[in-house]
Amino acid sequence: MLVVMKHGASASQIEEVVATIKEMGYGARPIPGEQRTAVGLIGNDGAVDSGRLLGLDGVLEVIPVTHPYKQVSREWREADTVVTLANGTRIGGSEIVVMAGPCAVEGEAQILDIAHRLRAMGATVLRGGAFKPRTSPYAFQGLGRAGLEQLAKAREETGLAIVTEALDPEGADLVAEYADIIQIGARNMQNYPLLRRAGKTGKPVLLKRGLAATIDELLLAAEYILAEGNDHVILCERGIRSFDTHTRNLLDLTAIPVVKALSHLPIIADPSHGTGLRAKVIPMGRAAVAAGADGLIVEVHQNPPKAMSDGAQSLLPDQFAELMTQITVIARAIGRGVTPSLVRGRTG
Amino acid sequence: MLVVMKHGASASQIEEVVATIKEMGYGARPIPGEQRTAVGLIGNDGAVDSGRLLGLDGVLEVIPVTHPYKQVSREWREADTVVTLANGTRIGGSEIVVMAGPCAVEGEAQILDIAHRLRAMGATVLRGGAFKPRTSPYAFQGLGRAGLEQLAKAREETGLAIVTEALDPEGADLVAEYADIIQIGARNMQNYPLLRRAGKTGKPVLLKRGLAATIDELLLAAEYILAEGNDHVILCERGIRSFDTHTRNLLDLTAIPVVKALSHLPIIADPSHGTGLRAKVIPMGRAAVAAGADGLIVEVHQNPPKAMSDGAQSLLPDQFAELMTQITVIARAIGRGVTPSLVRGRTG
Amino acid sequence: MLVVMKHGASASQIEEVVATIKEMGYGARPIPGEQRTAVGLIGNDGAVDSGRLLGLDGVLEVIPVTHPYKQVSREWREADTVVTLANGTRIGGSEIVVMAGPCAVEGEAQILDIAHRLRAMGATVLRGGAFKPRTSPYAFQGLGRAGLEQLAKAREETGLAIVTEALDPEGADLVAEYADIIQIGARNMQNYPLLRRAGKTGKPVLLKRGLAATIDELLLAAEYILAEGNDHVILCERGIRSFDTHTRNLLDLTAIPVVKALSHLPIIADPSHGTGLRAKVIPMGRAAVAAGADGLIVEVHQNPPKAMSDGAQSLLPDQFAELMTQITVIARAIGRGVTPSLVRGRTG
Amino acid sequence: MLVVMKHGASASQIEEVVATIKEMGYGARPIPGEQRTAVGLIGNDGAVDSGRLLGLDGVLEVIPVTHPYKQVSREWREADTVVTLANGTRIGGSEIVVMAGPCAVEGEAQILDIAHRLRAMGATVLRGGAFKPRTSPYAFQGLGRAGLEQLAKAREETGLAIVTEALDPEGADLVAEYADIIQIGARNMQNYPLLRRAGKTGKPVLLKRGLAATIDELLLAAEYILAEGNDHVILCERGIRSFDTHTRNLLDLTAIPVVKALSHLPIIADPSHGTGLRAKVIPMGRAAVAAGADGLIVEVHQNPPKAMSDGAQSLLPDQFAELMTQITVIARAIGRGVTPSLVRGRTG
Repeated sequence: MLVVMKHGASASQIEEVVATIKEMGYGARPIPGEQRTAVGLIGNDGAVDSGRLLGLDGVLEVIPVTHPYKQVSREWREADTVVTLANGTRIGGSEIVVMAGPCAVEGEAQILDIAHRLRAMGATVLRGGAFKPRTSPYAFQGLGRAGLEQLAKAREETGLAIVTEALDPEGADLVAEYADIIQIGARNMQNYPLLRRAGKTGKPVLLKRGLAATIDELLLAAEYILAEGNDHVILCERGIRSFDTHTRNLLDLTAIPVVKALSHLPIIADPSHGTGLRAKVIPMGRAAVAAGADGLIVEVHQNPPKAMSDGAQSLLPDQFAELMTQITVIARAIGRGVTPSLVRGRTG
Repeated sequence: MLVVMKHGASASQIEEVVATIKEMGYGARPIPGEQRTAVGLIGNDGAVDSGRLLGLDGVLEVIPVTHPYKQVSREWREADTVVTLANGTRIGGSEIVVMAGPCAVEGEAQILDIAHRLRAMGATVLRGGAFKPRTSPYAFQGLGRAGLEQLAKAREETGLAIVTEALDPEGADLVAEYADIIQIGARNMQNYPLLRRAGKTGKPVLLKRGLAATIDELLLAAEYILAEGNDHVILCERGIRSFDTHTRNLLDLTAIPVVKALSHLPIIADPSHGTGLRAKVIPMGRAAVAAGADGLIVEVHQNPPKAMSDGAQSLLPDQFAELMTQITVIARAIGRGVTPSLVRGRTG
Repeated sequence: MLVVMKHGASASQIEEVVATIKEMGYGARPIPGEQRTAVGLIGNDGAVDSGRLLGLDGVLEVIPVTHPYKQVSREWREADTVVTLANGTRIGGSEIVVMAGPCAVEGEAQILDIAHRLRAMGATVLRGGAFKPRTSPYAFQGLGRAGLEQLAKAREETGLAIVTEALDPEGADLVAEYADIIQIGARNMQNYPLLRRAGKTGKPVLLKRGLAATIDELLLAAEYILAEGNDHVILCERGIRSFDTHTRNLLDLTAIPVVKALSHLPIIADPSHGTGLRAKVIPMGRAAVAAGADGLIVEVHQNPPKAMSDGAQSLLPDQFAELMTQITVIARAIGRGVTPSLVRGRTG
Repeated sequence: MLVVMKHGASASQIEEVVATIKEMGYGARPIPGEQRTAVGLIGNDGAVDSGRLLGLDGVLEVIPVTHPYKQVSREWREADTVVTLANGTRIGGSEIVVMAGPCAVEGEAQILDIAHRLRAMGATVLRGGAFKPRTSPYAFQGLGRAGLEQLAKAREETGLAIVTEALDPEGADLVAEYADIIQIGARNMQNYPLLRRAGKTGKPVLLKRGLAATIDELLLAAEYILAEGNDHVILCERGIRSFDTHTRNLLDLTAIPVVKALSHLPIIADPSHGTGLRAKVIPMGRAAVAAGADGLIVEVHQNPPKAMSDGAQSLLPDQFAELMTQITVIARAIGRGVTPSLVRGRTG
């Protein structure tokens, strides 16, 4: 961390900065320059609160030099983390993993039907919300525990792993009983009690980037999970807020290579929420794989116009098949593959 | 809601839209135009999920005409809501209310000292975090229940009302035992289980706008609280995310007159988080009052360079006194006043 | 265009809206609803100024239904526009076109050397700035006319077409004398005198999206060129402004399929400016092709650390060769190709 | 400027950075740290291109320490710049200056009528566009030179100074013949040939912040004008692009105290374009003055529903009078005044 003094800062102001840094428990090294002096803060682990320094007289700026996260960083662990699920699917390795399913679990028949179809087309993880965070309190909020049971039944029949969202700390425990991956949604990316509890379950966690979250904030949110001793974390780019109204969100695919350079954690993309428009899901799913994503999570529904939520962005099963075909070729073009279909379900 | 068909949409595509609207339980009225046909959706209460319609063949766009919130809107209740606290402070009336205090409760001596000073300078509500949502898991996370007890003691001694943040549903119950106002922070604006639980306590709730939240989303988050039968909600503009790095956030003061036109709920501003810089708190606090805010929430610390969090944006007590003087004149200029200092504390 | 009245708008307010619409020369059709009345504006060509209506008493909102652009739209022309250059390169057809070169022309030896290398690796258009728009008035501003002459010499030797930027109307005439494509940079996307003059030259124009431009504004800027009778327009997504500081801009690849649906014009991507980081250019170049871009424009420099501008985002020649190899496979995966290398230069 | 090396950067990589800095003509000072080494760049005047350094092996980040602008900075000139107009109005002194008028000059009768009314209500500068930059090529583009002549006539009759926009370099010369202040609009903030030409005229220039311009970019654009020897520059905050659709732009009032700290130039606010909504102009005009703006520029029209552009954001004359009354009280509250009405027009 570098404390830049104003042009003309007095010697006593510089001394006050040095003293404050020492009081905070770090070393201080003044660096005189032609226009102004800077003071380096030495010995920090990345979590220094710059506030105390920024408010001192004569201070122009405080510039962080080290990143504030630790266990999620490439410097902490050089090799890629690979998250392995109960059904053998490996996320973060050389193969692209595809998670697919409806926005919400709407009933047993629906989820079983789509699960069988998706497995046949090459998905290895089934998505579907049992607890839905909805912008309006009057919108459909999910089937709750019944939805979790239906997902578990779909897993039993197809061998697909299950990813589903938890909305609060108790929900994380409940979801952990049923699911292979606990999803933390974009709205909850900085819901720290939820992150901690999900971390404590020891289960893989899919952490979606918040709509206004910087990449550093996404990594710091993941750090909350790792700080609980759980490094089975999969990051997910799902679109950020921007000013154009043609799409629901702005899918920031550059975040993928940026995260891969900063962190050892796998990162996937959600082109369904990332665009909000069915017709854009296939091109952006392709683009995400081309950009280096470790997987995709995609909404697919048997009959999107009758979906209870997010119908406009759900692919039809035939479109999903087309997406699988195209990303398989693209994955090969960049030296990767797509996870082969599960050989057999558990009941197979 | 208006479903706009593509130029050249077929009659059967239009019929499909009409049929889908009817199946959703609403009325449908086709409106032929010169370039294209639109279909009006009639009889909705504002909470229609446009997804099913947006995905139909021949549909170009779905345009919401009514707003999706209900109880928070001016159309639901014409008159301003005034939230009255136990110490008699009224928020949303003709007088500006000032909430002030340190970012975090750091100990009994600290909070009692600042509370007495603030009361003497005209604050009527004391702020201070006992549970702190911190971007890094390694930063100071607050004193917890001990902090709540210290706040309660400060209330007892000074008569100031207490506002402090809850981070999860159980926390909301705990905070409700001690505080006069439960604060929901920006990161939790769409933490629906927390919103619901805070609503159920029946206590006044201070709801801060999320960093990427539209004004409609802020109002819908408030709707979650009102839907629990609790209309003691105070909204708070505290800065949104933007691209300039000179300030921590971008304080969107225009949101104040926009919210006042759409909703009957009171709205205050937080120039401390809204700018992140001590030197900008006074001008932006003044500007918020001039823009029509019903109050301010401001960080003040006896010794900002030693604050355990957010020191850089905390005012010194003398600066707070200057702010109070200036906003008193500005409030008068627009026909309002500033809540008079409490005549005496409970122990007085 | 739909004028939505407030709940409780009076009959005379509705009549005033109808009268104003008629005075503006359009038809008006009131549409009574359960909550409120709307008035449809009929017979417009997309360029109605909503201001007059938005300011009338009783008006809640004015919602545009038709888009404000005309000649650039798919409804105006169904088939893809293909822009053909003098050297036979076709932009907007089934093949991906790659434009490459240094940020700025730095001298004859430099530009000739890189042009020969790029042609050998498969580029068909040479980029290089002779007039550079620089954020600081003290930065290198380009070689001017000498740079144009050096570009022309490179074309003569290699057969590559030339694209270079014009900064003002006279500059457009000058650039048109030398270049095959006149580039309008992001900062000038709404420089209307420049757009008009570039349109009048009849030359192909490469129009880059502004940092804060919506997709509709990009299309309207193109409309200025088409309105001069010049439909040889190539759009370019080059990153928009956002809040994350890891990349220089945020490359909005979803804009590519969005533009392809709205307009018949070709659109390419600039992953160099779009990311600002050399290491991200290859993954994002691949992603752009996967998303459906008609081409790429990429900065390549013999010795990026010595480049006079934008060195940090310039590829090395070897990296460019790698990019060409990878996008060739990806193009094939989605049924497209990459423009084959020019069979021979003019001097061949 | 500080070049931060990666953890584990080799000695030869550090030497390469040092050598490159020296080759660029600056001094280099390595600063070893516990986690990584940084290299300080010394002796720069603020305009260093970081690109060459950012692309070197082993470099993690390049952090600018000094700002890239020079003559516009407070460090260059400590005292506030006051721009004095021909009619004696001083901008940047202790008094708030109000510029007002229609969006566009629509004819002699209109502009003379409104000019007389505005002068009577306390405006000292008349605004009105003769050349209008319109998003659509089919919208009204202004009266051109005839509009300038009508503005000049209004000045002659009322003594008001004139501010009007120039769109291109020749336009700047033409506007300079007629107007007291040449306005550079938001779309042209980085139109460098226009900035230079406006600078060369020696006339006062009103420079509006671009929709996606950082505060540093605004100051650098102003630097282009000062670099021509013209320091009569007035900056203007007029709203930036953001994601909420309730307002046309997001008025960033915090930019005002930020600019006042960084630069000696005066800054005013445009609450008309900044909000796009008539009902928000008065509260935000008040807020701008409370935040420390040196003036306002406001759209006022005799009959906004019949305005040829921007009717929705134009105040009625009575509303303008109310605004003047309110800001006069607020100016006094912060120790300033509002420029007194001109004692007499030139023809008086």
